[in-house]
Amino acid sequence: MTSKFFSERNLRFLLYEVFDVISLTRYDTYKEYDGKTFDMVLKAAMELAEGLLWPIFQEMDKNPPELADNQIKVHPSVRKFLEECGQGGWIGPGMPFEWGGQQLPQMITHACEFIFAAANYSASVYPGLTSGAAHLILTFGNEEMKKTYLPKMFSGKWQGTMALTEPEAGSSLSDITTEAEPTDKGWYKIRGQKIFISAGDHNAVENVVHLMLAKIKGAPAGVKGISLFVVPKKRMEEKGQLVLNDVVTSGIFHKLGYRGSPIAQLSIGDNDDCRGYLVGEPHQGLFHMFQMMNEARIGVGIGAAAIASAAYYAALDYSKKRLQGRKLSTKNPTAPQVPIIEHPDVKRMLLFQRSIVEGSLALLMQCGKYADLAGVLIGEEKEKNEFLLDLLTPVAKSYPSEMGLLSISQGLQCLGGSGYCDDYPLEQHYRDARIHPIHEGTTGIHGLDLLGRKVMMKGGKAYKLYLEEVQETLREAEKLEELQSYTPKLKESLEMLQKVTAHLMEVGRKETPELFLADATLYLEFFGIVSVAWQWLVQAMVVVKAMKKSPDGAEANFYAGKFFAFRFFFEYELPKMAGLAKRLMNSDGLTVEIKPEFFSD
Amino acid sequence: MTSKFFSERNLRFLLYEVFDVISLTRYDTYKEYDGKTFDMVLKAAMELAEGLLWPIFQEMDKNPPELADNQIKVHPSVRKFLEECGQGGWIGPGMPFEWGGQQLPQMITHACEFIFAAANYSASVYPGLTSGAAHLILTFGNEEMKKTYLPKMFSGKWQGTMALTEPEAGSSLSDITTEAEPTDKGWYKIRGQKIFISAGDHNAVENVVHLMLAKIKGAPAGVKGISLFVVPKKRMEEKGQLVLNDVVTSGIFHKLGYRGSPIAQLSIGDNDDCRGYLVGEPHQGLFHMFQMMNEARIGVGIGAAAIASAAYYAALDYSKKRLQGRKLSTKNPTAPQVPIIEHPDVKRMLLFQRSIVEGSLALLMQCGKYADLAGVLIGEEKEKNEFLLDLLTPVAKSYPSEMGLLSISQGLQCLGGSGYCDDYPLEQHYRDARIHPIHEGTTGIHGLDLLGRKVMMKGGKAYKLYLEEVQETLREAEKLEELQSYTPKLKESLEMLQKVTAHLMEVGRKETPELFLADATLYLEFFGIVSVAWQWLVQAMVVVKAMKKSPDGAEANFYAGKFFAFRFFFEYELPKMAGLAKRLMNSDGLTVEIKPEFFSD
Repeated sequence: MTSKFFSERNLRFLLYEVFDVISLTRYDTYKEYDGKTFDMVLKAAMELAEGLLWPIFQEMDKNPPELADNQIKVHPSVRKFLEECGQGGWIGPGMPFEWGGQQLPQMITHACEFIFAAANYSASVYPGLTSGAAHLILTFGNEEMKKTYLPKMFSGKWQGTMALTEPEAGSSLSDITTEAEPTDKGWYKIRGQKIFISAGDHNAVENVVHLMLAKIKGAPAGVKGISLFVVPKKRMEEKGQLVLNDVVTSGIFHKLGYRGSPIAQLSIGDNDDCRGYLVGEPHQGLFHMFQMMNEARIGVGIGAAAIASAAYYAALDYSKKRLQGRKLSTKNPTAPQVPIIEHPDVKRMLLFQRSIVEGSLALLMQCGKYADLAGVLIGEEKEKNEFLLDLLTPVAKSYPSEMGLLSISQGLQCLGGSGYCDDYPLEQHYRDARIHPIHEGTTGIHGLDLLGRKVMMKGGKAYKLYLEEVQETLREAEKLEELQSYTPKLKESLEMLQKVTAHLMEVGRKETPELFLADATLYLEFFGIVSVAWQWLVQAMVVVKAMKKSPDGAEANFYAGKFFAFRFFFEYELPKMAGLAKRLMNSDGLTVEIKPEFFSD
Repeated sequence: MTSKFFSERNLRFLLYEVFDVISLTRYDTYKEYDGKTFDMVLKAAMELAEGLLWPIFQEMDKNPPELADNQIKVHPSVRKFLEECGQGGWIGPGMPFEWGGQQLPQMITHACEFIFAAANYSASVYPGLTSGAAHLILTFGNEEMKKTYLPKMFSGKWQGTMALTEPEAGSSLSDITTEAEPTDKGWYKIRGQKIFISAGDHNAVENVVHLMLAKIKGAPAGVKGISLFVVPKKRMEEKGQLVLNDVVTSGIFHKLGYRGSPIAQLSIGDNDDCRGYLVGEPHQGLFHMFQMMNEARIGVGIGAAAIASAAYYAALDYSKKRLQGRKLSTKNPTAPQVPIIEHPDVKRMLLFQRSIVEGSLALLMQCGKYADLAGVLIGEEKEKNEFLLDLLTPVAKSYPSEMGLLSISQGLQCLGGSGYCDDYPLEQHYRDARIHPIHEGTTGIHGLDLLGRKVMMKGGKAYKLYLEEVQETLREAEKLEELQSYTPKLKESLEMLQKVTAHLMEVGRKETPELFLADATLYLEFFGIVSVAWQWLVQAMVVVKAMKKSPDGAEANFYAGKFFAFRFFFEYELPKMAGLAKRLMNSDGLTVEIKPEFFSD
């Protein structure tokens, strides 16, 4: 098995050459950093990934968590990993120095998340969830809460979770029934059921801190009645001792993949003794939670691209070593067999993977850059970056998730029968990655979010800003002769996007919401293709400029390969928009119209 | 878990209403049959599937075969199933009466295979392989061979296999090194290694009969030196006793899915005591083997459509029962939640599955009909049917295999988080089905077969016959008013196919084989879409005629649903050809040109 699961060269390309992360160091927040210190952070992440995470990638899958005596037991290395995360500053690495964070820009933390997830996605989820939960407490919690929870969480001793889903409320969060009854002691009594809670309980930590959605008794129906609570597994009594808080792990789910991470079912307050602590304002819970959800969505995109990266390098390694067949033009059957990477169809499968992995990662880095700039800029510029991040979040979550599956499947295909067997990691990547179109909002939900909310919000402001961004790239790219046969293709696609969007807006104005949003999932796919094509053009500009300096050896190969992957995306993936546009322009209501009983047989 | 895994109504629709299987009974071969007796056969298959196969679908996955003491141990029900297959005539059901077969047309045996595979794909493979191996012996073996092997195989007591792949020869069969040394006793001494042999060894039978490819010492290099042998695990000595034949099971593969069926590694002749018996002519082995391979390829298509069928009905059942969310136009958050089948996006996912499952199955039945007619007709008519079957075999194998994966993935998606967990069968379907684009020739190999061989053979004769078939359907469909907005779409697609094919033929004439075949896999996909669209139009004609008789109740719903699935394919799937055509018309040699070292980072 190859030991390569990501490309350091590509990460450096994106961070330093394309998105110029060092330019952030001119702002106060990041002034402590420079290229050297960023490098040290990346190096530390790689060491942890290579030394601890990658070696147990298959082992954690083969020895999944088990529930025994009301507690979930996980692989022993999880504890070690979380301790290392605590010591190395990998939990909440973007948090402020004053809370013990590393105050890193998101571009860098995204890169580190990518490295961890490529090495071992299941393991990477534990610190990721704690980071998001801690960030919520930091943003909306009171001082006491911060002091009680944050140091423990940042040290890796306490696990954070997001506890949203219930048996009868998954995609429809407004239907949660977990109840919070106010007491005169400042805390609430919590009662309910939660399912599908990632890292919802395990023995690698001393405590689990659930960031939980519940409804305060008498709250309005729907999303407007949802509040956010901290509900720890063990609560801290006045004297500082931890006592059980009536949060019982009532089940564990057995999953297709992503098996190193336990997914728990929780029974809360069965003995009327569960205390929850309100975070932020009452009835603003879902709004608050969106901070963590949006971070988690970008995190899913990163995880999806990361698994696809690991699969790609496994497929590439095999394709270079495996001898099979001859060139089609070789007629002599006694000529030696060639490595399968010599076959155009195998190169096509590899280029497909590379174009998905590196295109997705570029889009995620672009989102990181918007987030970083939103954090340091003010006024209109800040707002612009926030809008762009908001608009692109469903795309950056869903495109890598959906296309990652196809990418990994092509990786598996490169290995033929061996890809189907567990002597190679492909089959696990294939299983692990299938979670991504589901968790943190299914692809369908993100389609509704993009078309029904994001594209429309504030009179289409974010959408217009997006078009300007892509047009700006096109203007820059048009100046480079080497790109002149490619820019028209993206231009045409962008026009297609505008045409389709205008058509759908018209349907939205005139027809029912059902008809307007019937093909929202396809619109999301459509939007994803043009966005990733844009990111490939952004990369291609850097490549063209770099090639002019006549690099040699590995550098020349890197840039040459990049340019092929860019071309591949434009020649093989971008044309898919044509078929989607055809469908999207035809709002015939087919799926609205068909009655459930027509599926009866 | 729903107990429905296929639609009997749809099978009857295809067999009796679309392809008129009863019309075959006018030929001598099938004169013993009529609608009633066909029905009895179908009923018996359903009973076996529902009574024995479906109940152990998950159990066989959770308790995969194990290798111990040189023998693979399989689930105890496999023996029972093979016994029932033997008694019920399910092994070689198309074989002649004189050999104890049922002499059934392929349309009927395809339907039964489909039922078995939908219930439990892994289990269905055992009799399927024995059937194909027995058919090979029947066609090319000598009388003694037939007498020795066929009764045991048809009774389910001996397992048949196809033993082709070797560690260094998978897609490139010409590189096999298994050797056959002639002796003066009529048999050959066999020595070699075989891998990935399905049902290659197990304890549910008394013996295993390998139909094995090997090279006779001194044979020419390449495919022209390959011969076919019967190599039994236990050979029959003169006095009729069985003795071990030096075929040792040296390994078992641990697979992503399809776990109920053991895939073995075999060491042959390590002790210089393995006897093989030549089947057919020396050096004609690959040619002979193509009979079994082609049958197996259609079998893979059936298996792929069948798993997708089971996944579809599981998703449908869930979608009808699961309450989540409200109609988008419902603003009241206290209104009751609706079954998710009310949501257009869920209906879209269900229609996608139905259009893939039923469209694929129609194409496979069409192939069955060609095979049946080739078997009973003579002269030019026979040849025509043979050509069409030959041309469509790579399509009928690959389209269901590739699209089945996407279909099952959408089925899993309908269940959200539950689809990812093993409380539901979706995750297993998702794993099981991934073998199909790999075994019996990868999708890439079938692309080469279609474009590089089938479309070109005999001056494009099969291809021209195919175009005529589709045009004939178009002419018929144009007569129906209800189809007038759909026929132009298929017409346009067929023209696109011709344009693309002509372009590629031109490239083939003028350029290297590498460039000509670089996108053969995409051409296969392209060809698959137009072929399945054709089959949907074939079905739609029957639906339109049936609707005119004003059916009611379940019948009306069946036809109405069918028509929606037809429309869905034309509106959502057929447009994908546009993007593919764009690529296929652009033979820029991108994947030929890129050098392996450009993938270096």
